[in-house]
Amino acid sequence: MKDIKQTWVFDSPVYIESCASVSGPMEKSGPVGRFLDKSFEDLYCGESTWEKAERALMKEAVSLCLSKESIQKEEVGLFIAGDLLNQNVTSHYTAREYPWPYLGMFSACATSMEGIAIASMCVHSGMVQRSLTAVSSHYGAVERQFRLPLEHVKQRPKTAMRTVTGAGAAVISGKKSPIAVRSVTIGKVVDWGLRDPLDMGQAMAPAAFDTLKKHLNDTGKTEEDYDLIITGDLSMFGSRQFLELCEEDGLYITDRYLDGGNTVYGYHPEGYAGGSGAGCSALVLYGYVFRRMRKEHWKKVLCIATGALFNPLTIRQKETIPCIAHAVEFELTAGLEE
Amino acid sequence: MKDIKQTWVFDSPVYIESCASVSGPMEKSGPVGRFLDKSFEDLYCGESTWEKAERALMKEAVSLCLSKESIQKEEVGLFIAGDLLNQNVTSHYTAREYPWPYLGMFSACATSMEGIAIASMCVHSGMVQRSLTAVSSHYGAVERQFRLPLEHVKQRPKTAMRTVTGAGAAVISGKKSPIAVRSVTIGKVVDWGLRDPLDMGQAMAPAAFDTLKKHLNDTGKTEEDYDLIITGDLSMFGSRQFLELCEEDGLYITDRYLDGGNTVYGYHPEGYAGGSGAGCSALVLYGYVFRRMRKEHWKKVLCIATGALFNPLTIRQKETIPCIAHAVEFELTAGLEE
Repeated sequence: MKDIKQTWVFDSPVYIESCASVSGPMEKSGPVGRFLDKSFEDLYCGESTWEKAERALMKEAVSLCLSKESIQKEEVGLFIAGDLLNQNVTSHYTAREYPWPYLGMFSACATSMEGIAIASMCVHSGMVQRSLTAVSSHYGAVERQFRLPLEHVKQRPKTAMRTVTGAGAAVISGKKSPIAVRSVTIGKVVDWGLRDPLDMGQAMAPAAFDTLKKHLNDTGKTEEDYDLIITGDLSMFGSRQFLELCEEDGLYITDRYLDGGNTVYGYHPEGYAGGSGAGCSALVLYGYVFRRMRKEHWKKVLCIATGALFNPLTIRQKETIPCIAHAVEFELTAGLEE
Repeated sequence: MKDIKQTWVFDSPVYIESCASVSGPMEKSGPVGRFLDKSFEDLYCGESTWEKAERALMKEAVSLCLSKESIQKEEVGLFIAGDLLNQNVTSHYTAREYPWPYLGMFSACATSMEGIAIASMCVHSGMVQRSLTAVSSHYGAVERQFRLPLEHVKQRPKTAMRTVTGAGAAVISGKKSPIAVRSVTIGKVVDWGLRDPLDMGQAMAPAAFDTLKKHLNDTGKTEEDYDLIITGDLSMFGSRQFLELCEEDGLYITDRYLDGGNTVYGYHPEGYAGGSGAGCSALVLYGYVFRRMRKEHWKKVLCIATGALFNPLTIRQKETIPCIAHAVEFELTAGLEE
């Protein structure tokens, strides 16, 4: 079969005009904590339910993203958002607060890069001058939906990941800024037959590998072209498997590789196998990676956000877990420092 | 505040190269039944669960959409899909069957037009030659997720709508065909404070009105420019409220107005207040409306798909229902008949 191109290269520049990251308390205490724009002191974020708390995270990220670069509400032409709650309700209830045309997205934890991809496409096409994209996840809201309420204090296997409490938002536009979006690679669904929802890292690793390979193929780049290749939330077991798949294929990226799930909590005893959730890649990318890029620590970054596309019912129906990964290529535009 | 543009006008032509609609048995027996491409004889569609049945509907729609115009799998550059199940699993498990880069979407029952909008944008921008978009819904799968399993045979109020069992798929490309996509208007979230999930029509009507007004404003068109204005699934009570909102505003569209939810079941006693679900607008548009357009019955059509952006938990948490409507302007390209 003929090869299907999965990468969109933006020949005219598309920039990250602004971004913001907002987290819960545990993310604040992790290695990326000091790079975040704001962190709430407890999981409730001043609200009465986990679900409202997640909305508070997303709303705060959106609000900071605008205020940091003095962008007015009416200068935003499109809002693109997604989260992990059933029917994406965090995003919808957040969108309700704003006067923007709104598109809901879902690629599980890969939604962060799906949002950047669509937002960039809309700006690149000239249809929209400025798009804002946001994602979020919340430990309490997600646990009770996908597994059991936190109050049950259930034990977990060592492969289980911890859902990140956090939200990220980014404004994409044609206005020159230090970080440009050069290309995006839209993933296809990859399913290697795994069915353990408490080991999503290993289920998602093949999707991340597939998208990395495809990105390099489509663009003619090699791993050497990147200073950093970062996966969204493969965590301890998934990232190891991802590296194995790369090495089996002759791709040696260990010297330039990070995983958001491993980075967000470091060695915190409550961090389980690492972080996961749509908020994970957003916190690490918008908070940590972009700040380090602006300091010229990394110039070319490929972010591969990964998502497990199941729900609790498909697991009970003995289905395997389809996974996806979307990649975005970021570049520091020359000579600009903070 | 400055007016935010919500409409994308495609100056270079974007066409519906192919489309297909597949339904369950009750939709077959309704007024649009004879226009559909295929209908299954029972709700299980040859599968063992409602969820698998919904996938069978979507897969069949995708497959027919390709075969009707002899489009090869490898000629499709992007798959965009959404449905109503938690975490959009119908779409993901369908996407798993194909080698396409895939974007998951969610605007509840408005996902059909969100898919057309993004697919058209990607083709118009030149990034993708041919995108395929699909949506689905299934009475059994949706009822047990949003309300109660069918086996409970619960009574409903007269405002309750019936989820359509059906799927639609469309291929969008630059290849000249009888029906062109001229513009899309992306809705914003509208919430008038209603909170009854068994009366979604009246909750969604203000969103449909908002998007219609915005579309006319953005494009400088009037209602007279359309031969048909069709809403997705407002059904009996919602469409009446929509017409009232229009008339209060001086927009008299009754002579050129249809609602998908009213059309799909006609006066079937089991059709409740009318059809709803992401499959509703897809069956009526791809099956019925596009066929009538090709016969030159209508030349200019505005389809406004409506969605209620809640989930059962937000209802239990006493939230109101945010709604959205996305509109797409279709035009019969001159002189082409079937």
